[in-house]
Amino acid sequence: MKPVRLAILGLGTVGGGVLKLLQENAAEIKRRTGREIQITHVGIRRPHPELNLDGIAQSADLLDIVRQPDVDIVVEVMGGIHPANEVILEAIKHGKQVVTANKALLAEHGNELFKAADDHAVQIAYEAAVAGGIPIIKVIREGLAANHIEWLAGIINGTGNFILTEMREKGRTFEDVLKEAQELGYAEADPTFDVEGIDAAHKLTLLASIAFGIPLQFDKVYTEGISKITAQDVKYAEELGFRIKHLGIARRAPQGIELRVHPTLIPQEQLLANVNGVKNAVLVQANAVGPTLYYGAGAGAGPTASAVVADVIDIVRDISYTEDGAGTIPQLAFEALSDVAILNREEMTTGYYLRVDVEDQTGVLADITTILSREGISIDAIMQQPRLKDLIPIVILTDPIVESKMETALTKIQALPATRGEIVRIRLESLES
Amino acid sequence: MKPVRLAILGLGTVGGGVLKLLQENAAEIKRRTGREIQITHVGIRRPHPELNLDGIAQSADLLDIVRQPDVDIVVEVMGGIHPANEVILEAIKHGKQVVTANKALLAEHGNELFKAADDHAVQIAYEAAVAGGIPIIKVIREGLAANHIEWLAGIINGTGNFILTEMREKGRTFEDVLKEAQELGYAEADPTFDVEGIDAAHKLTLLASIAFGIPLQFDKVYTEGISKITAQDVKYAEELGFRIKHLGIARRAPQGIELRVHPTLIPQEQLLANVNGVKNAVLVQANAVGPTLYYGAGAGAGPTASAVVADVIDIVRDISYTEDGAGTIPQLAFEALSDVAILNREEMTTGYYLRVDVEDQTGVLADITTILSREGISIDAIMQQPRLKDLIPIVILTDPIVESKMETALTKIQALPATRGEIVRIRLESLES
Repeated sequence: MKPVRLAILGLGTVGGGVLKLLQENAAEIKRRTGREIQITHVGIRRPHPELNLDGIAQSADLLDIVRQPDVDIVVEVMGGIHPANEVILEAIKHGKQVVTANKALLAEHGNELFKAADDHAVQIAYEAAVAGGIPIIKVIREGLAANHIEWLAGIINGTGNFILTEMREKGRTFEDVLKEAQELGYAEADPTFDVEGIDAAHKLTLLASIAFGIPLQFDKVYTEGISKITAQDVKYAEELGFRIKHLGIARRAPQGIELRVHPTLIPQEQLLANVNGVKNAVLVQANAVGPTLYYGAGAGAGPTASAVVADVIDIVRDISYTEDGAGTIPQLAFEALSDVAILNREEMTTGYYLRVDVEDQTGVLADITTILSREGISIDAIMQQPRLKDLIPIVILTDPIVESKMETALTKIQALPATRGEIVRIRLESLES
Repeated sequence: MKPVRLAILGLGTVGGGVLKLLQENAAEIKRRTGREIQITHVGIRRPHPELNLDGIAQSADLLDIVRQPDVDIVVEVMGGIHPANEVILEAIKHGKQVVTANKALLAEHGNELFKAADDHAVQIAYEAAVAGGIPIIKVIREGLAANHIEWLAGIINGTGNFILTEMREKGRTFEDVLKEAQELGYAEADPTFDVEGIDAAHKLTLLASIAFGIPLQFDKVYTEGISKITAQDVKYAEELGFRIKHLGIARRAPQGIELRVHPTLIPQEQLLANVNGVKNAVLVQANAVGPTLYYGAGAGAGPTASAVVADVIDIVRDISYTEDGAGTIPQLAFEALSDVAILNREEMTTGYYLRVDVEDQTGVLADITTILSREGISIDAIMQQPRLKDLIPIVILTDPIVESKMETALTKIQALPATRGEIVRIRLESLES
């Protein structure tokens, strides 16, 4: 099969990320799709020596690129309304499939763009337009397709969530945190889109359409930002068992649909209340499945590229299927399975929680720590618990270590004269990325 | 287009749920697929007067059902290895598409079943086999397809998580909670599959295959249950900042792949540590998107049916596409968009957090509560805060009320002689289902 050919329009943070991801994960992606993806054109306004563009045609004439016959898919990652709108329409007219991360464009002009796409029998894929790397569009359009969706509530602007998190955790003011967010690059010099909720309203517009099957109606979203939230109210909310989150909410009410973006007190014990920093999450309430929640990075080169390239892969499969009936999703996700070894228990690596009950503590602690140290096991924490039934429980947390070494150490500790009963050993994972 | 025709094998909790969901959400599902789904056969061993089976052929001869020409998709929701294995193989030989929720069957015999499906160019869809209603199979196979997946860790057995949650929250013993779980119907009379991790190992086997592209290797999963976890260790873990969760973990290590199911200490601040009760969640670490998490109901009639029917919808779309090029996923998820009204702000209903700063409190509290009461606004909590800059902040939480009434009340409260500054009004949502 010949490769599927891609034009990437824009090589900024997101576009550069898409290019690099397609290059770095090329082998794994080909294992999934059974087909090569070739970048034939990039649309750029300045040279990009930091990127590998060997063999790729470079041009600033975007309309010309989308008319080229050696382009199957146009990836629009420039952002902004113009000229993205005109370029995508031209691509559609030339029968190109389109992938875009442009939430503002779709929320404000999507009805016409999707109509044009339907008329020309092409897709506009937009997973990256909402919640970055979280595949929330696929989840709602396909994964929850059996459900009548009742409402959804999402933290869909990372900048706003970062500001509210800092205000709560450190008692800082809005102005103070905003300044830091701008210095960190989380917030733009003009932060209006983020802090006044416009960006979230764009995303909510898209989510509501696919949840309820309604046209895109950005102008009807009630939008309120976080700039008036004070440290005082954050504190009072906390005392009452709530946290303030900037949510996009779409809800079917008896009289119609509510579309609203505003600061919201939610109960502290809700998972959504515990989504901190620049992370995003969307909670969906649907009639068959009940509540489900989707969490992850809502912005950044890698996460956005993950969503853009997932859309590309979907389209590559569709193209393969149309061309020769191949390209359905492989049963176990990959066209060819790998025979990489599965490790035995002794070869696995984890941290450990150990509880050793000892009769008399004199010297025992030294004996235990010496045994662990000789096996190369480093201790992360050690805690002597109050005497219980004449025994002193010693609790130890270790750093990750291969299980065979822990086995050796435990055999020796178990054999110490002071050790009573069987040593408790529970594995420990930091789950850090 | 003629309807797509379904046979449902088994009408227990899950099968009954699938039937009811297809009947109850028929209109919404047709809006999504543009095509009718007709249940032509059910495979049952006893009458089901509680279900509406009008016009559906009923039989106990499952092999006969899957050979019928008026069946396009076979939904296997009987569970167990036999005769499910034989029936699915027969269905495949007759060119039927298969949807199953049978994790044990797939984990132990999936390699042969998927091979047979490939040979006959049909799909075996199995979203419901892992984590119930959470669309985790679709997320990993499609949504994260651009990524090299590094590891995943999941709470994928609700019974085990319920037991550990109760032990932690109430200091109860394993045996005590297990007994209650059995009485509540969360745990089987023979709880081995759940509490010894076999069920979780089945699910992990499937997750690992689609994450890494490896054959199903259930026999190589290291599996340890929760029956030896004591209230004492749960408490010590808590004191050290950790929680004990029963996790299925699949990880690429330098020497090979780790597949393991065991109790695990994880940091309290991790979202996974805050997944309580019978709920499931899967955390996936992938190279482009970073960590993402998927949370929801892992079992039960509705959630499982949600996943089964999502698979059916995917297949209906594939069939439509093959037959006449229709059936691609609609751009905004539905074939026909609805013109339901979007409400104005005044028509929206939410709870509220109010802060009224007052100069002198005598009688003011009564004035405020009277105004709220006259507008039909009920107060959920009221808290007088310590005097701040000569003003007394009164904080009020209200039950949900239509915004126009709150506007009226706030205008009146703002006009009270004791009110100083602008009243702070932040919306409040319980996010309960």
